[in-house]
Formats: sequence, structure tokens, C-alpha cells
Amino acid sequence: MKHNFGAGPCILPQEVFKQASQAVLNFNDTGLSILEISHRAPEFVAVMDEAINLVKELLNVPAGYSVVFLQGGASLQFCMVAMNLLPEGKKAAYLETGVWAKKAVAEAKLFGEVEVVASSKDKNYSYIPKDYSISEDNVYFHCTSNNTIFGTQMHSFPQTNVPIVCDMSSDIFSKEINVADFDLIYAGAQKNIGPAGATLVIVKDEILGKSGRKIPSMLDYKIHIEGESMYNTPPVFSVFVSMLNLRWLKAKGGVAQIAKENDAKAAALYMEIDRNPLFKGTTAVEDRSKMSICFVMENPELEKPFLKYAEDKGCIGIKGHRSVGGFRASQYNALPITSVHVLIEAMQEFAEQNA
Amino acid sequence: MKHNFGAGPCILPQEVFKQASQAVLNFNDTGLSILEISHRAPEFVAVMDEAINLVKELLNVPAGYSVVFLQGGASLQFCMVAMNLLPEGKKAAYLETGVWAKKAVAEAKLFGEVEVVASSKDKNYSYIPKDYSISEDNVYFHCTSNNTIFGTQMHSFPQTNVPIVCDMSSDIFSKEINVADFDLIYAGAQKNIGPAGATLVIVKDEILGKSGRKIPSMLDYKIHIEGESMYNTPPVFSVFVSMLNLRWLKAKGGVAQIAKENDAKAAALYMEIDRNPLFKGTTAVEDRSKMSICFVMENPELEKPFLKYAEDKGCIGIKGHRSVGGFRASQYNALPITSVHVLIEAMQEFAEQNA
Repeated sequence: MKHNFGAGPCILPQEVFKQASQAVLNFNDTGLSILEISHRAPEFVAVMDEAINLVKELLNVPAGYSVVFLQGGASLQFCMVAMNLLPEGKKAAYLETGVWAKKAVAEAKLFGEVEVVASSKDKNYSYIPKDYSISEDNVYFHCTSNNTIFGTQMHSFPQTNVPIVCDMSSDIFSKEINVADFDLIYAGAQKNIGPAGATLVIVKDEILGKSGRKIPSMLDYKIHIEGESMYNTPPVFSVFVSMLNLRWLKAKGGVAQIAKENDAKAAALYMEIDRNPLFKGTTAVEDRSKMSICFVMENPELEKPFLKYAEDKGCIGIKGHRSVGGFRASQYNALPITSVHVLIEAMQEFAEQNA
Repeated sequence: MKHNFGAGPCILPQEVFKQASQAVLNFNDTGLSILEISHRAPEFVAVMDEAINLVKELLNVPAGYSVVFLQGGASLQFCMVAMNLLPEGKKAAYLETGVWAKKAVAEAKLFGEVEVVASSKDKNYSYIPKDYSISEDNVYFHCTSNNTIFGTQMHSFPQTNVPIVCDMSSDIFSKEINVADFDLIYAGAQKNIGPAGATLVIVKDEILGKSGRKIPSMLDYKIHIEGESMYNTPPVFSVFVSMLNLRWLKAKGGVAQIAKENDAKAAALYMEIDRNPLFKGTTAVEDRSKMSICFVMENPELEKPFLKYAEDKGCIGIKGHRSVGGFRASQYNALPITSVHVLIEAMQEFAEQNA
């Protein structure tokens, strides 16, 4: 039995794997594979509609917002956001909380001025900056809600009149959010949405069409909205599996219910990290992520043996990113709490053996 | 039994569906789904390497060319090509042979001057223009090798010193090509490569880096080449299934062998179209596509009944695009000749019944 703590692409529910596997052989009793049906077939148009409606329902997306599935991952959004929203000669504010935020800054600079309003680089991105102001001459404020590599998460967002753009790749659908607080939300699918290859964008319609820039069709949010996520051939299978996964989430009780489970999983692991004399967390306690839990060992020489010990128990994907070292246990929606317990037991047993 | 003549996403080999379905449950005996493994896992890096090497082997890609798998479909290539290759104030030549070629022109115009060297719009794109010249002040010449909507195909390419960029979305891997004749080839996966969601690019390295333009990272071929198609999270499943499909093609005898089968399938159907008094082709005979076979009925009132008749025999996806009407039978690599025979029989029986 494997316990998949991988950072993404990551674990999805076992029943979603079973349904997806079946649809590769025979989709919806059409006698055809989901891989060979036309994206214009009514059966797939229904899948796309259901996926979009599930996003709206699960997140209570208010009127005036559009939901689209695109390709290219969050990385393509780094440039699309600026290309669509930042007029030449204007300025956007960015909060630099890690590697992905920094990449978003670099791409935005190709299209206008960028003001990094705060950065936690001074302490290797181990906290979320809070004392900063966003001047109103910024066209938008961009932030990354969860930092997979460094293990921090924004548990609140600034109060500002400046439109907020948020990269929620690694914590969307993990907890309740108020979509109306944001003007554009984007997320690569491969954490809590579905398999790699799809990208979700939720955007307030009124902020679009104001950049004064000629935008290539495939990079223009308005074109994808008008095309109902089918301006060109969409990533059919990734959207299909995302739909299955959102159905699973709805059946489970939705975002409020999964948030409780995620809270319990995170609380259990952090409690062990704080209790166990061999381990310690790497981030400011108040900024700890509930999705990406980073920790190291007091004695770095024990890290390799512990990694092996945990892997022998089936815990995979827990090696930390080289920027932080140690361990990173990603606890996405589909990871059962029983997997967290296995990891905790491994930590306890290892501590006894190395007391 | 369904006979899938769909234009794309389209039929893939049944054994590929079986292998893909199995890998969604348990990939490569890892105990994990292909949908939950990290793209950095050695098992997936091996998949990406094999996919790229199969492309190189099956098409005899010469030294000095790079092969990458991207996202966004051929539609994103329309702007990426111009963004990467066309310096501001310079000119590129485009051959307008259909809807996709026209879209490529529109996107390129955002980045420089476009000279449409010839167009077959005058006859609803029913032929491939041949009498045109490409002046050497063009930075590149762009063409579409197969026109899915109109059923034409370029059976030869112009002799020119100008670098040739070719959208081969719908006929790559269907026949032998000399890659050295081209400087950049691109293709959406969803015909003869694999499922929707991946895009193949084969590019001569020396033409890159000369646009003088600052290109967003995700739109810069050089960045994807340096990142070995993993600059960001790739569309894991689409690349995996593409690899399986290219393996199938190799085991079958490669491109030379499939070309023979495609020739036989196309010859059989065109013979029936020409022989059967009820039907007629829509394109110039010398430009007929072997992948996308378009035909109409002498009596348009019989088209709806024939569509139903053919569908009752299991032939699906044969309704023509609204720009041409009538029928379009796409005969991609994985379509067995037995399916073509079923369609031909339906045409013959229908003719007898409506003599």
C-alpha cells in the first residue's frame, strides 16, 4: 500500500481512478474511449458543462464571473495575467512569497512595471509578509495563496481596493474561499482539481478588455470565455477527470467538509513535528500550510535514514525540495487521514529507535 | 461495433486504450496511477524520453533538430511561431489553404508583416495552390500540410531557400517525410499522435533566438528545449498515451508501413466515391487528402438519410464540416481498413436501395 504525499501531480481519489480507467475503454456507454470522442460530441460538451458548473457550485462563484478550463498550467498564466490585465506603462503589485511568485513577477515585467510590495526572501520564504501596503495606482495585486516548496500559506488576504489576482494552484478546493474577494483566480489542475494538463481560471468579467494590447487569441481570456473553453480542442481527458474529481468532492460534502478533514490531517502532522524531538517545522507557525507541510530533522544526518524508513512503510513523495531540504508531506484533498497516521507512526517509531 | 471516422480527437489503437486504461489504475507496476505520479519520477522521465526518441526514430529526425512536447494545441503554435521567428518589421509568407491556415495568418499579423503568397479561397479551399513564388525577403514560409475541413493535402512542398514552417497536425506520422526539408514542424497530438492535450514541435535549433523579441518563458521554444519538455509540469497522461501510440506504430513497421495502409484505405474509399453514381468528391483530384476524405451527394436530399444509414452500420463522425457540407471520413492511422470496407458497403447498399 502506497501513501502518496507527492507535491503534484498528486493523489486523486481511488474511485476517480477507477471511473477514469473505465472511461478510457468505454466512455459513458458510447462504445468509444474518452480518448477518441470528439470534443464537440454532446456527451463531452455535457462533461465540460458539468465541470464548469461544479466549479461554480463548489466555490459559490458569484454572478459576473466566468469559469474556463485552459491549457499550459499556472506557468502560462504568469504571462497571460499581465498580458490581459496590465496596460503598457502601468504598474502591478506582486507579493513575493516563493519560487512561483518570483516567476510570476519575471513574466509580468515583460508587459509593464512591477512593484514587489513585500518579499520573504530574507528568511528563505519561510513566512508570509504582512506589513505592506498596496498603493492604488497598481492595476492589480498578485499573490500566491500556497507555497508548495516552502510550506507557507496565506490564511488571510489584504483588504484593498486594488483587484486581487491569486495563484491558487495548490490550495484551491481545499477550504472555503470568498470568490468575490478576488478578481482573477487561476490554478493548475494537478493538485486538488485533476490530472496535469488542464488549468482553471475564474475571472471577473469586468476586468477584461482594458489592457489596450493586441492579444494572441489563445492567450486572450475573452476568447476562451466566448468559446466556452472550446475555442480550440480542449484537454479532453484532463477536463473529464477533473469533473469526476469535483463530483467526488461534492458527494463528500463539498469544500466545507474537506476543509475539516484537511484541518485534522494538518493538525495531526504538525502536532507530531512539534512533539517529536527529532523533527522541527521550517516555517513561521502562523503561516504554516495545511497542504504542503515542510519539516527537517534536528540532526540532518538522520534525514536519509528516515526517508528510507518512511518509504519502507509506503510513504512516498516526502523528500523536501532542494531549496528547503528535509521533508515535504503534501496532504491534498484525496490523501486519507490514515496515510497521515502511517507517516506519524513512522516518525514515532524512528524516534524510539534513534532515541 | 463502432467505426470511428471522427476528425479529431480521433480513434487510437485498441491496444493503446487497454494499456492506457491499465496505467490509470497501476502504472508500470508502481502501485500508483499514471495520473498521480510526479513528472519528475524516474518512471515518467523515462516515458518522456521514450516519446521523444520514438518521434526522432520514426521520422528520422536529423541532428540539429530538437523535439519537444508542449501544451495548447496547434492554435497556440500559430502565435508561438511568429513570436519566436518573426522579428518586428520583417515579413513571413503564408499559404492559405483553409480555416487553420487562415487562423495562423491572423495570429502572425500581430507580430510582423504577413504576405499571403497564394490562397485557394476562390474555390472554397478545394485545391492546393501551386503557382506561387516565395520571395527571399520572407523570414519563413508557413503552410498547412493537410486541411481537415476541406479534404486537401499537400503532396509536395515548394523548393525554396526560405525556411519552411509546417502545421502537420492532421497528417504527421501518416507517411514518410524528410524532416530536413522543414525548419519547424508542429502538430496537435489528437490525430495520429495521441489524445488531446499535447502538442509536438520539431524545430531546427539554428533558427531560434533571432527574433530580437522578449518572449514569455512558456512561449519560448528555447526554454522548453532546455527544460527537456519539463520546464513546467507537462501534460503527463497525454504524453504517456502518445508514447504508447508511437510504440504501436513502431511495432507495426513504422511510418513506411502505415503509409501503405493509409494509401490502401484512401484508394478504396475514393474509388467508391468516383464509382458510385450517388456520391462525388469535393476537391481537386490531385490534391485529395489521404487522411480527410470529403464527399457530397449528387442529390443533397439524400445526405441526411445516408448519414443515418451509415450511422446505423456503426460509422460515426462522418458528417461533413458546415463549410463543405456532405461527409468527411477521417481515416487516421488507427482506423482499420475493415472500417473503411463497412463504410463502402453502406454506400453501395444505399445506392442499390436508392437507384
